[in-house]
Amino acid sequence: MTRLSEDALIARYFAPLATLPGADGLRDDAALLTPPAGMSLVITADALVAGVHFLPDDPPETIAAKALRVNLSDLAAKGAQPYAFTLSLALPGDWTEAWLAGFAAGLGRDAEAYGFALIGGDTVKTPGPLTIAVSAFGLVPSARIPRRAGAAAGDGLYVSGTIGDGAFGLLARRRDAALAGLPAGMREALITRYRLPQPRVALAPVVLAHASAAMDISDGFVGDLAKLLRASGASAEVDLAAVPLSPAARAAIAGQPRLFEIALTGGDDYEILCAVPAAGCAAFEAQARAAGVAVARIGTITAGAAPPLFRDADGAARTFAAGSFSHF
Amino acid sequence: MTRLSEDALIARYFAPLATLPGADGLRDDAALLTPPAGMSLVITADALVAGVHFLPDDPPETIAAKALRVNLSDLAAKGAQPYAFTLSLALPGDWTEAWLAGFAAGLGRDAEAYGFALIGGDTVKTPGPLTIAVSAFGLVPSARIPRRAGAAAGDGLYVSGTIGDGAFGLLARRRDAALAGLPAGMREALITRYRLPQPRVALAPVVLAHASAAMDISDGFVGDLAKLLRASGASAEVDLAAVPLSPAARAAIAGQPRLFEIALTGGDDYEILCAVPAAGCAAFEAQARAAGVAVARIGTITAGAAPPLFRDADGAARTFAAGSFSHF
Repeated sequence: MTRLSEDALIARYFAPLATLPGADGLRDDAALLTPPAGMSLVITADALVAGVHFLPDDPPETIAAKALRVNLSDLAAKGAQPYAFTLSLALPGDWTEAWLAGFAAGLGRDAEAYGFALIGGDTVKTPGPLTIAVSAFGLVPSARIPRRAGAAAGDGLYVSGTIGDGAFGLLARRRDAALAGLPAGMREALITRYRLPQPRVALAPVVLAHASAAMDISDGFVGDLAKLLRASGASAEVDLAAVPLSPAARAAIAGQPRLFEIALTGGDDYEILCAVPAAGCAAFEAQARAAGVAVARIGTITAGAAPPLFRDADGAARTFAAGSFSHF
Repeated sequence: MTRLSEDALIARYFAPLATLPGADGLRDDAALLTPPAGMSLVITADALVAGVHFLPDDPPETIAAKALRVNLSDLAAKGAQPYAFTLSLALPGDWTEAWLAGFAAGLGRDAEAYGFALIGGDTVKTPGPLTIAVSAFGLVPSARIPRRAGAAAGDGLYVSGTIGDGAFGLLARRRDAALAGLPAGMREALITRYRLPQPRVALAPVVLAHASAAMDISDGFVGDLAKLLRASGASAEVDLAAVPLSPAARAAIAGQPRLFEIALTGGDDYEILCAVPAAGCAAFEAQARAAGVAVARIGTITAGAAPPLFRDADGAARTFAAGSFSHF
């Protein structure tokens, strides 16, 4: 099979995604980016490795989408709107043009859906697994963004969407026996959540307006909450019964109660965790509803540096052995 | 041996390089970047894979420096000053803290020397080779940068520094017999050029002021010139005797004349190739001299889409079999 040259590959598959004039159609080694007046750039970077962050035989469309969405999730948690991204792609020797066409199609679909323009990157070969490094640029209409630090006693503690679906999706993808009792449709729904995170981009302006601290949950709710609290020098009381679960996750936990801990400590949620000062909670909830993003109040920030207090539905305290999932 | 967690590793080795306030000491998932008023951002990305772009047993200090410098070279060729970068690092399972300390030291030395601040990134594990993806941000005081396109008939054609040292350095590093006759000191000098490119940052404002087209030479002079000419819809006459060679490269070629072709077509030069309109050539040369960067006029842009005409010292035309080295 004839292989495309790097230049031909870029021209055919990636140049159509370079919709900002400063990207010069990816014909150059660099892009020129002038943020609109009054806007600041928010920059984040996430890398994905086959076998670590996705499974090598996942569809190329969803691998591409996931590479973008884990970055979009970080931007959303900082209140930023998608703007542009660079893509560095290390391809193993056995890549095929069909695979690359699927990857570019998935990338293009999300780039268009989220208004996220490719502005450059690099394509190299690797003797190792497929590796995708994205640097993402978002825009905020302000000179501040919500940080991990900033949560204060009395703030409401919120999460977006539902927790645990990504971790359950990975279990389902691996045909783990714990999920064998679930209807096939629910297993599929969980796998889709693992493959296709739902970055809460629509919530970004609401987070920017109201959150005292925010981050996206990528390494497990319990561990990421601990990071936010450590950065803020605060603690929290969390009502575990209020942690939002999808119907599939709820059914899985009903069948195997030990899965609840996996839901709370597994990775791949890509939901937003944030603290909102008491005076802003009502407006935060109303504006989230207007933005079409479910948010659930799961607790309250408290003073002190103690670990957060997790309470079951019956009020009993609960601790978690595994604090956090680490891709590292 | 106890391994550092990702957070501890970032705090110890990388946070000291995050000197811009918007990077928040790398305690967050994102940085806030507001380019100074009137400045535009130039963005480029380059990835390096062990065994492809550097040798796995190269010193970690020079691996880090090379990862930055190949990006700095792209910025310089676009007339941009170093500003900030993200670093995504995929580490194989056998990394050691000593290796990482060396890598961070090399990164820190160049970050300081070039005024280049780390603003974020990601650290992941990989079952494959060490992979380093850098996205680099430069600043230009204008809304235009020299592109590959833009060279016009009559423009002078220039290169900075010397050509071929990187390719010869790789040969020397591999103990290639072709360089066995060189004094050890010259072989060492070539290896150093391979490991430590010299990005022509000081030339950036001169390129910005005068070049009609510019790019950095990373995949071989002959092939990269062809790219610049194709993008510009132009051709060129090149005086091969004027192509600048280092003393070591000159000695190598004197011993093995066939090496001249490798000098012109091998990769890893990281010099600037640019076209300068005739009216600006004298100023370009004088300002380059004042900036302390050697530039050599090697030919003239001509009209038409024919391949460039390379002439030997005796005026004979010469062609090259291998157009360009590709890392892909």
